[in-house]
Amino acid sequence: MTPTPLLDAIEWPADLRERPASDLTGVADELRQFLIESVSRTGGHLAANLGTVELAIALHYAFNTPDDRIVWDVGHQAYAHKILTGRRADMARLRQYGGLAGFPKRAESEYDAFGAGHSSTSISAAAGMALAAKHAGLDRRHVAVIGDGAMTAGMAFEALNHIGDLDCNLLVILNDNDMSISPNVGALNQYFTRLLSGPLYSSMREGSKRMLEFVPPMKAFAQRAEEHMKGMFVPGTLFEELGFRYFGPVDGHDVNGLVSILKNLRGTHGPQLLHVVTRKGQGYAPAEEDPCRYHGVSKFEPENGLAPSAPKSPTYTDIFSQWLCDQATADNRLLGITPAMREGSGLVAFSEQFPQRYFDVGIAEQHAVTLAAGMACEGQKPVVAIYSTFLQRAMDQVIHDVALQNLPVLFAVDRAGIVGADGPTHAGTFDTALLRTVPNLLLMAPANERECRQMLSTGFAHDGPAAVRYPRGGGPGELPEGDSEDLETLPVGRAEVVREGRGLAILSFGALLETALAAGEALDATVVNMRFIKPLDTDLLAQLAASHQGFVTLEDHARAGGAGSAVLEWLSAEGLTRPCQVLGIPDAFTEHGSREQILADCGLDTAGVLAAIRHAFGLENCADDGSRIGFAG
Amino acid sequence: MTPTPLLDAIEWPADLRERPASDLTGVADELRQFLIESVSRTGGHLAANLGTVELAIALHYAFNTPDDRIVWDVGHQAYAHKILTGRRADMARLRQYGGLAGFPKRAESEYDAFGAGHSSTSISAAAGMALAAKHAGLDRRHVAVIGDGAMTAGMAFEALNHIGDLDCNLLVILNDNDMSISPNVGALNQYFTRLLSGPLYSSMREGSKRMLEFVPPMKAFAQRAEEHMKGMFVPGTLFEELGFRYFGPVDGHDVNGLVSILKNLRGTHGPQLLHVVTRKGQGYAPAEEDPCRYHGVSKFEPENGLAPSAPKSPTYTDIFSQWLCDQATADNRLLGITPAMREGSGLVAFSEQFPQRYFDVGIAEQHAVTLAAGMACEGQKPVVAIYSTFLQRAMDQVIHDVALQNLPVLFAVDRAGIVGADGPTHAGTFDTALLRTVPNLLLMAPANERECRQMLSTGFAHDGPAAVRYPRGGGPGELPEGDSEDLETLPVGRAEVVREGRGLAILSFGALLETALAAGEALDATVVNMRFIKPLDTDLLAQLAASHQGFVTLEDHARAGGAGSAVLEWLSAEGLTRPCQVLGIPDAFTEHGSREQILADCGLDTAGVLAAIRHAFGLENCADDGSRIGFAG
Repeated sequence: MTPTPLLDAIEWPADLRERPASDLTGVADELRQFLIESVSRTGGHLAANLGTVELAIALHYAFNTPDDRIVWDVGHQAYAHKILTGRRADMARLRQYGGLAGFPKRAESEYDAFGAGHSSTSISAAAGMALAAKHAGLDRRHVAVIGDGAMTAGMAFEALNHIGDLDCNLLVILNDNDMSISPNVGALNQYFTRLLSGPLYSSMREGSKRMLEFVPPMKAFAQRAEEHMKGMFVPGTLFEELGFRYFGPVDGHDVNGLVSILKNLRGTHGPQLLHVVTRKGQGYAPAEEDPCRYHGVSKFEPENGLAPSAPKSPTYTDIFSQWLCDQATADNRLLGITPAMREGSGLVAFSEQFPQRYFDVGIAEQHAVTLAAGMACEGQKPVVAIYSTFLQRAMDQVIHDVALQNLPVLFAVDRAGIVGADGPTHAGTFDTALLRTVPNLLLMAPANERECRQMLSTGFAHDGPAAVRYPRGGGPGELPEGDSEDLETLPVGRAEVVREGRGLAILSFGALLETALAAGEALDATVVNMRFIKPLDTDLLAQLAASHQGFVTLEDHARAGGAGSAVLEWLSAEGLTRPCQVLGIPDAFTEHGSREQILADCGLDTAGVLAAIRHAFGLENCADDGSRIGFAG
Repeated sequence: MTPTPLLDAIEWPADLRERPASDLTGVADELRQFLIESVSRTGGHLAANLGTVELAIALHYAFNTPDDRIVWDVGHQAYAHKILTGRRADMARLRQYGGLAGFPKRAESEYDAFGAGHSSTSISAAAGMALAAKHAGLDRRHVAVIGDGAMTAGMAFEALNHIGDLDCNLLVILNDNDMSISPNVGALNQYFTRLLSGPLYSSMREGSKRMLEFVPPMKAFAQRAEEHMKGMFVPGTLFEELGFRYFGPVDGHDVNGLVSILKNLRGTHGPQLLHVVTRKGQGYAPAEEDPCRYHGVSKFEPENGLAPSAPKSPTYTDIFSQWLCDQATADNRLLGITPAMREGSGLVAFSEQFPQRYFDVGIAEQHAVTLAAGMACEGQKPVVAIYSTFLQRAMDQVIHDVALQNLPVLFAVDRAGIVGADGPTHAGTFDTALLRTVPNLLLMAPANERECRQMLSTGFAHDGPAAVRYPRGGGPGELPEGDSEDLETLPVGRAEVVREGRGLAILSFGALLETALAAGEALDATVVNMRFIKPLDTDLLAQLAASHQGFVTLEDHARAGGAGSAVLEWLSAEGLTRPCQVLGIPDAFTEHGSREQILADCGLDTAGVLAAIRHAFGLENCADDGSRIGFAG
C-alpha cells in the first residue's frame, strides 16, 4: 500500500479535528489513495466513494460527531466515513462474511447514526432525530447527505415538504454528481443541471469564499425580498419554496471550502440545504471516465483498472434482458419501465433498441407501478423491471392500482432471495409473502434460465398481473435455445415432476431445484419443480398426497408466509393431514456474505436440507434410499 | 326532491355538451341541490363533492369524454362526475351492497378511466395513459384531478418529476381547497397559500378572462426569459421548475370561466398544470362552515344539517385516542405521528393536549414511518397511527428502516379487516400477511376494547417494533376501566383460553372472538383468544395439540399468509399432523357493503363459520355438543 502518514495518525474524528485545516487536502489525497487500493483488493462500491472523500472529511472536521448526527443516504458512498471512524483496518474485509458491512449499520458503529441501503430515507431519518433532539432540549446538529438521484424519490419530497414547515436543526446536503447508479432522469435532474449552468455557480468554482461572504448579509433581507432577489440571482428556488434555506452550489472537492461553509452552517438554525457538486470517481481516471462501470466493482489492479469483462455464462438478468428485446420485437405493445436501474435490471439493450418504449422513471417505485397500471388500462403491455427489495416500496400500488383492477402488468422481480455481499437491506426474501396475499396475481419462480424466459413470456401473455421472481447471478446453465423468436409460454399453474421417487415429495419453488434434486437423490424422494407459487398446481399436489407419505417444500424466501405456507394452506383447505416440512429462511434478517454462505447458514445447502428432512421425518438412522421412511408427531 | 329540469335532460356527457354554455350555471345549481338531497338520504362523502360540481361539469363539457380520459384522484370527489355519466338514478344506492361504489371504478363505467380510493395515484395513472396514447399515435387528452392535500404524497412528486421531462399530453388540475381530510400541513400547503395571496390571483378572481388573454403571448417569450419573468409575476415557479406549464389560480366555482380555460388548454400540448381554487362544502352552508365534519356523513335532514352526534359506545379509534393521551401523560418520550388522518385515526385530543409532540406529516406514509425510525434512534417512543390499507404504502420503510434496525416504533393499525362502505380500496385485509413475514415485529390483534388498550400499552413498552391491528367501528363493549393511569400490559406471546371444550380448539385472532365463541358453544369446542399473531403462544398450542383432535383458526384477514398460516407453519415445524382449518377472507378482493354483509359473504359470520367447521371435520350430522367429532382426510 502507498504510505499514508497523515491518515495513519487519524483513528477517530477527534484525531482529525486536532489537525490544522492546512493538513486536510493532504488527508484527502491519502484517503483517496487508500480507498482505491483497498477497494481494488476487496471489490465494492468505488465511484460514489471517490466522490465523497472531501465531504466526509469536512463533515467530521466541522461537526462534533458522533454527538452530531450524520445520516448517509443509500450508504454506498460512506467508505471514507467508515475509514475516518475507527474502521480503517476493517476495510480489508469489506462486504465479506463476518466483516465490515458495505453500508452504514447502527450495530457496527456509534458514528453510523442510521442504517441504509435503500435510497432516499436520510432526510426522514435525520428529521426524526432532529425533532427528537428538539423534544429532548438538545442542541446537537443533524445532517442528511443525499444524492441528486435519490432526491427524485417521493419519500425525499415528503420529508422536505414536512420539515420545511418546521423549526428544527436539519442540514440536507445535496450531493450532486448528476448520477444515481444509472444516469439520472426527470425534470429535477434538468433543474439541477440548470442550477449548475447559472452564473452564480461559475463564480463559485473559483472557491467558496464568495459564498461565505454572501451568507451573513442574506439574513438582513426580509424573507419576501430575499425570495424575489434569489429568483434572479440564487438558483435554489425550488427548495426555498419548500421552506429550506438554500446555499450553493459549492465545489465538493475543495475540502477547506467545505469546512468553512459547514462550520458556518453549523452555527445557524432551521432547515437548510447545501448544494455540493462532486464527481463520481474523482481522482481515479478510469472511474471518472466510466462511473457506471466503476459503481460497484470486483477486485482489480489499480494501475490497470477493471479488466475487460470476461465472457461468462448469462445471469438471470441477462436472460431477462434478451427476452425483453425479443418480446418487444414480437409485440409492439410492450413498454419497459425501470425505477433508475437500467444497468442492474438489464435494460441497456432494450433502451438502445427501443428508446421510445423505454421509461426510466427515476428512483420512483411507486410511480413506476401506477404508471404501468395506466398504460395497461389503454391496451399496452407494460413490463416493470424491479429488484425484489425495491418492490417493497410499491406494495400499495401493486395491490390498489394493478391487482384490484386486474390489469396486465408484468413484474420482472430480480434479486429475489439471498443477494450476498449487499446484505440484509438488499435481500429479496419477503416478496413471495407480500405478493402471495394479493388476489388476481400470478406468481412464478424459475428453476433455470430457460424457464425464466418461458415464465416471462407466460406472464406477458397472461391477461392480468403477473410476477416472475428470479435470483441474483446465474443459474444452473440450462439456457434458452438460441432462437430469438421462441417466446414459448408455460401452462399456467402446472408444475413439473423432475424426479419420481417414493415416500417423500420435495416441492421446490425456484432457484434451489438443484439442492432439492440432490436431496431427492439421497432420499429416493420425488422432486417437483413447482414453477408456480400462485396458483399452485393443486391437481398434482392431490396426486402426490395420495401416493406419498409426506411433503417437503424448499424456497429461497422467508418461511413465514412463503410458498411453503401456500402448500400448507392448500393441505389445510383440503383437510389433508400429510406432514409437510417447510424449508426456507428462518425468521431473522440475513447478514452479508456470499450467497452460498448465507444459504448454508439458513440450512438451505444440500447438507442442511438433508439434515432438516431427516430430522423432521425421523430418518436420522435411515438408509439413504429412503427405504425406512417414517414420521414423527 | 327539488325539481331539476336542466339536469333531467342530461343522462350522458354528450347531452351536456349539446347545451349552450349559458345553461351551465343552472346545471351546476341543480346538480349541487341534487347532490345534497341524494347524499342526505344515503350518507357518503359530501363536502369534497360539493366543491367539484363546476369542475366536473366543465371537464365533461370541454373534453370529449370518455375518449378523453379523466382520472379523479382519491375519488371521493367524483359524485358529480358519476351523476353526469349515466349513474344519476343509481345514486340512491350509493355505497350500499350491490349498489354504486363510492369511488371511481373501471368495472362500473367506461367514464371511470381509473379506479381510486387511495390518494395521489392520478398523475401516475394519467401519465401512463398519456404515454400509451402517444405510443399508439392517438391524439386524445388526459386529465388528472388532484387535491392540494394529495399533492403532498411522494408519488405525486415522483410523477411530476418524471412527466415534466417528457412530451405527453397531460393536464394536471390542482384542486386547491386547502384541505385534505384533515387540514393540510407542510411547506407545500404554505406555498399554495402564498400563491393565493399573490397579486395575480386577486386580479384573477374578477374572472378568468385575463388568464385567457395571457396564455398566447406567453408562448412568444423564450423559455429562459419566461422563467425569469414568471419569478416576478407568475406564482407557479415550483411546478415550472418541474417542467410543467403552470396556469392559474382560477376560480373553481365559475363554471363558464373553467370551460373557457379548459377548452383553451385542450388545444395545447405537453404537460400542464391548472391551479383551480375550490371550496369544500360549496353551496351548502353547514358544510362550508365545518368541512371536516361534512367530509363523510351519515344520513341527515338537509334543512337541519347533521344531527349532533349522539353519545355512542366508544369505537376502537376512540380507545386508541384515549390511550394515546394517557400514555403520553405517563411517558414524556411518546411522540404521535399521523399521515394526514388526525380525525380518522383519533388524534384530535392528543394534538390539542400535546401540540409539540404531535406530527401530522401530510399524506406521506413513507416519510411517517422513517421519521418515526429516526425518532426511535434517539430514545423517543414514536407511535404511528395509520390505517391498515395505507400502511401498504410504507412496507419498505417498516422493513428497511424500522424492523431491520429493531427500533421501538409502535404502529396503531386502524381499519384492519373489512371496512364496509368504502369497499376494496380501503379493506384492511392484507396487513397480517405483510407484517408477519417481517422479522423482529410484534403483532397483536385485540378481541375487545379493553384488550386493545392493553395491547397498545404492551406494544409501547416493547423494546422493538410492534403493531396492533384493530377494526373499524366498535367492539363488543368490553371497555377499559375508567382509570386513565391504568396502562397495564399483557404478557408477550400469551394467549387466553376463553372457553374450555373438547375435540376442537378454535383459535381466534382479533375481532371475531364472539363468532368463535358462538361456534365454540355450538360445538362444545375450546375457544382461544390468541391475542398475538407474532409471536404465537406456542406453549399453549402444544398443550392444545396434545389434548385436542383438531384446530380451527379464525381471522378477519386474507387466508393467504394470515394468522392461520402462522399456526400451520408452527404445526409443520413441530411435525404435528393435527388437522387445522383456516377461516378467513377468500383469495379475492371484497366488495363494498356493510361490514356484517361482507363478513357473511366471506363465511365469517357464525352460520358460515359453523358450516365451514362442520364441513371440514365431517360433522354435518353430528350433535351440536360435538360428541361425535371425527375427521376427514
